Amino acid sequence: MTKQLQLLRQVMIDLSIDGMLVVREDEFGGEEVPLASERLCYISGFTGSAGLAIITQDQAVLFSDSRYSLQMEEELSAEWQGITAPPASIKEWLAENLDGQKLGFDPMMMPYRNWKNWQENSNIDWIALAENPIDIIWKDQPLKPVTLAWEYRENDAGMSRKDKIKATLNALDEKFSGFLITAPDELAWLLNIRGQDLSHSPLFLAFAYLDRSGHVLVFTEEKRFEKVNKNNIEIAPPEAINFCLEELLSLIRGKIGIDKNCPYAFYQLLREKAEVLASPIAQLKAIKTNAEIKGSYSIHKRDGLAMCRFLHWLECHRRYGVSETEAGEKLLAFRRGEKNFICPSFATICGADAHGAIVHYRATAGRDGIIGEDSTCLIDSGGHYWEGTTDVTRVIAPMSGGDDAMRYHYTHVLKAHIALDQAIFPHGTTGCQLDAIARQPLWAVGMDFGHGTGHGVGTCLNVHEGPQNISKHGHTVIEKGMIISNEPGFYLADAYGIRIENLLIAQSHPHHEGSLCFDHLTLVPIDKRLLAMEYLSMVEIAWLNAYHQKIQNRLGTGIQDLADQGLAEWFVDATAAI
Amino acid sequence: MTKQLQLLRQVMIDLSIDGMLVVREDEFGGEEVPLASERLCYISGFTGSAGLAIITQDQAVLFSDSRYSLQMEEELSAEWQGITAPPASIKEWLAENLDGQKLGFDPMMMPYRNWKNWQENSNIDWIALAENPIDIIWKDQPLKPVTLAWEYRENDAGMSRKDKIKATLNALDEKFSGFLITAPDELAWLLNIRGQDLSHSPLFLAFAYLDRSGHVLVFTEEKRFEKVNKNNIEIAPPEAINFCLEELLSLIRGKIGIDKNCPYAFYQLLREKAEVLASPIAQLKAIKTNAEIKGSYSIHKRDGLAMCRFLHWLECHRRYGVSETEAGEKLLAFRRGEKNFICPSFATICGADAHGAIVHYRATAGRDGIIGEDSTCLIDSGGHYWEGTTDVTRVIAPMSGGDDAMRYHYTHVLKAHIALDQAIFPHGTTGCQLDAIARQPLWAVGMDFGHGTGHGVGTCLNVHEGPQNISKHGHTVIEKGMIISNEPGFYLADAYGIRIENLLIAQSHPHHEGSLCFDHLTLVPIDKRLLAMEYLSMVEIAWLNAYHQKIQNRLGTGIQDLADQGLAEWFVDATAAI
Repeated sequence: MTKQLQLLRQVMIDLSIDGMLVVREDEFGGEEVPLASERLCYISGFTGSAGLAIITQDQAVLFSDSRYSLQMEEELSAEWQGITAPPASIKEWLAENLDGQKLGFDPMMMPYRNWKNWQENSNIDWIALAENPIDIIWKDQPLKPVTLAWEYRENDAGMSRKDKIKATLNALDEKFSGFLITAPDELAWLLNIRGQDLSHSPLFLAFAYLDRSGHVLVFTEEKRFEKVNKNNIEIAPPEAINFCLEELLSLIRGKIGIDKNCPYAFYQLLREKAEVLASPIAQLKAIKTNAEIKGSYSIHKRDGLAMCRFLHWLECHRRYGVSETEAGEKLLAFRRGEKNFICPSFATICGADAHGAIVHYRATAGRDGIIGEDSTCLIDSGGHYWEGTTDVTRVIAPMSGGDDAMRYHYTHVLKAHIALDQAIFPHGTTGCQLDAIARQPLWAVGMDFGHGTGHGVGTCLNVHEGPQNISKHGHTVIEKGMIISNEPGFYLADAYGIRIENLLIAQSHPHHEGSLCFDHLTLVPIDKRLLAMEYLSMVEIAWLNAYHQKIQNRLGTGIQDLADQGLAEWFVDATAAI
Repeated sequence: MTKQLQLLRQVMIDLSIDGMLVVREDEFGGEEVPLASERLCYISGFTGSAGLAIITQDQAVLFSDSRYSLQMEEELSAEWQGITAPPASIKEWLAENLDGQKLGFDPMMMPYRNWKNWQENSNIDWIALAENPIDIIWKDQPLKPVTLAWEYRENDAGMSRKDKIKATLNALDEKFSGFLITAPDELAWLLNIRGQDLSHSPLFLAFAYLDRSGHVLVFTEEKRFEKVNKNNIEIAPPEAINFCLEELLSLIRGKIGIDKNCPYAFYQLLREKAEVLASPIAQLKAIKTNAEIKGSYSIHKRDGLAMCRFLHWLECHRRYGVSETEAGEKLLAFRRGEKNFICPSFATICGADAHGAIVHYRATAGRDGIIGEDSTCLIDSGGHYWEGTTDVTRVIAPMSGGDDAMRYHYTHVLKAHIALDQAIFPHGTTGCQLDAIARQPLWAVGMDFGHGTGHGVGTCLNVHEGPQNISKHGHTVIEKGMIISNEPGFYLADAYGIRIENLLIAQSHPHHEGSLCFDHLTLVPIDKRLLAMEYLSMVEIAWLNAYHQKIQNRLGTGIQDLADQGLAEWFVDATAAI
């Protein structure tokens, strides 16, 4: 038995619990967690970005999704059982193995919504623990990040902190005395402040309470806010939050709004006056200001230049073989050279050949694949800049051009991409409807893909943000000013993966009143070597040519300024009409 | 003040209630109610098929949707206020006008789901009344229909009563001791029995309880069941239901399953053991048996013949002017001539010109429009036959061919119709996704329509049945064997309405494993005079020609057998390729 499991089981006996739930998320519920919160990895050794463990005295089970089945096998030691399973079957497992028993969980790491779902029809005694048992046993647990926050320029935000607070309070029903902000990106947006707590999101991890008078009480270390203006802000130390919320509870008359992803611990504390609502900040944040839209167009030029330089570099070097990690590092280096670049917006996915078919593949140095002359390579990457965030996926053709099947698949994915890009739809249309429009060209030939077609994108916040998305479960109306990705794909296991991703901005249709359409923000050539022309309509060919012409127009000068003859030639070729 | 209002208000005083809710639905919740249940019409004079009245001592308000605004004006007397409003605003009206007061309602006329919705966040004292006040004051209230039930042939059903009961119990979670059947079409399906209580649905109105042992306790008059086999059936008088349910409550150990549309009165009675679930019968019923599918193909030949004879008749007579009601009657006469016809499946919508733009238009003799040479006419009709149910809409062109705008609109509606007809989609696709695929050709040019694209259709049951539908709210997966309508439209107020409707059957795609597609059941020529060819793709033209060729192949012999030279010529012309 590993030392970790042995220690945890002893603590479980001390706490009189029969089982313990360990999740991957931290109290801020984001996709990325700081090292200090890698509790699932500490206890199990599993490094995947999604998973959940249940430990009893005689079992240790880790649930994750199918994309991690291989990784679970490799990373879990013998006493662990790795299960690839949908969330519903975890409930079944619990019912079979812990019926009537006590299951401990950390109520800070349990979003209210999940707690509600777990509890429903459950015959398990869910025990909210005062302290996380992992924190008790984890001797060399890293410290929580406490980095300096920085002021986000009002010019880039297009809306002052004061106006954002006003808009949020306007959107909040009168019955609420205030709103508990538990999502760091919502807090960052509201205050026009960014941070450096994470590697891929410019956020500071903190909770806050917005009251009716427009004051925001932020629970964070005073020193983090040294360099930012503190209008409308009060600061309290993070450890004071429970005390302050209890005080609040006795003082206010109205309800306290909480988001459905609020930690269960806060819900429990505020129960008497808490009411769950869809966060008004999430909806406001999703609709970009004119300044944010302008900024997004601007950074996509820079990001497009970096991508072009990378794609050209890759073409020049692949004949000698380029490792996936090397390619990712080179791409990051090109992005770093661009004005106002902050950090990558997520861990780059660079998958050669069969690796491309693994939707969330992550290359590791020394064990990664090689991009050679005959490789197909899927590269999904993006960056945070002061003025916004990018996310783009391209597939690089084998220099031979690929076989018929690959060209067929690639061309149909492009057809799906164009279908969504060109969609016109009335106001009121939801993401689930647009999802079908995107998939139709694939469905028509029996193709499909297992992920959503699009996700919302924050402005120098999280690269994945809600409430909007384009998927079977997208029930949010797509509004003018929303930025959303367009990334249909196709994956042939053990062979190759295809995904073509641009970011789109929803806007009013110029002619049809009440209708919306998209404009694409991303400016990166689409590899033409993989096209099977016979499957493209005249309209689709025209779309591709117009897209490449637009890239020429917008990036041409930038490319010339680089005075790199090889790059300039590659660019003309890559954006030439078919 | 009308006598009715005066009497009702007196009863309200006697019952100590401040307001009274009168709905259009009866306790069986169907779209069609017998005369005895036309309480809303009795109290208000309003004859529309959807509406809800709230009466207080000084107000009388009737809410309905926009399609009835004119009719409300005409039918409501001076003391009534007619309001065209979405359901949400009724709640607002209540909050403003009856805050903290007592609102009486008949718990038998209140589906559990509606009650839950009304109650939520409501500060109104909802009083479930033991007796409906309208029934107290309505002196000449017609008797409830008590008609003879008839045996539905097992050959047509494709599944015995015993097997249906077995399948239902299999689909019912073990925790349920039984299921309370409150939808008459579900009961009719389960027992393979039909009735004659309504004009447009071959149903008998009754409640029943299915227990775990496979017995169905039907609450109905013994004499109604004289002519049907009573295997697995026990009969109790309708008035014994409350007593029996109370008995049941004390006897059974498990839960009693109820549908979300179960009358609130039963929920209240069974509360202790009731659990709401999606009716297992609704889902089973929606997936047609092979016999039902075969029957549906067969009746659509007969229905197509009747429609052809009607369309030809109309072409011959419109030059003299044909009234909308006359046209409807003639169409019914042709259907009556077909084998195994039972009754129309809904009140025919026959709307000339501007009447066609009123989505649920109903012509009334003496006040109806005239279909002349230059009229556009929308005809939506259908029939119940022993072997199934039809529902078809066609638009008849002005003999001149219509103007450019009309042709443009008509052609785009046809494009939408073809888009859904030809859709290929993976298993798991929901109606809301297919809805977008159907609307895309309209959305692309800024057109749209305000109703759903498709509804489920029962087999000699209700012409509208769930759980599946194709609309923004269609979250049910479309399964192989479901019959669903395909009826996109376009409505130009005060000018004309366009809708082209066929019934479709979902089936496995012949080549793409795991994918589904549709076959059309309806066999009625689509008027080609309104086509603007320049907007049709080659594929769409080929679809139309293939569709008409199929009609020729399937109906040709039947048309020849009628030995009507004019009809035969019309038919050849109507189904000729473009």
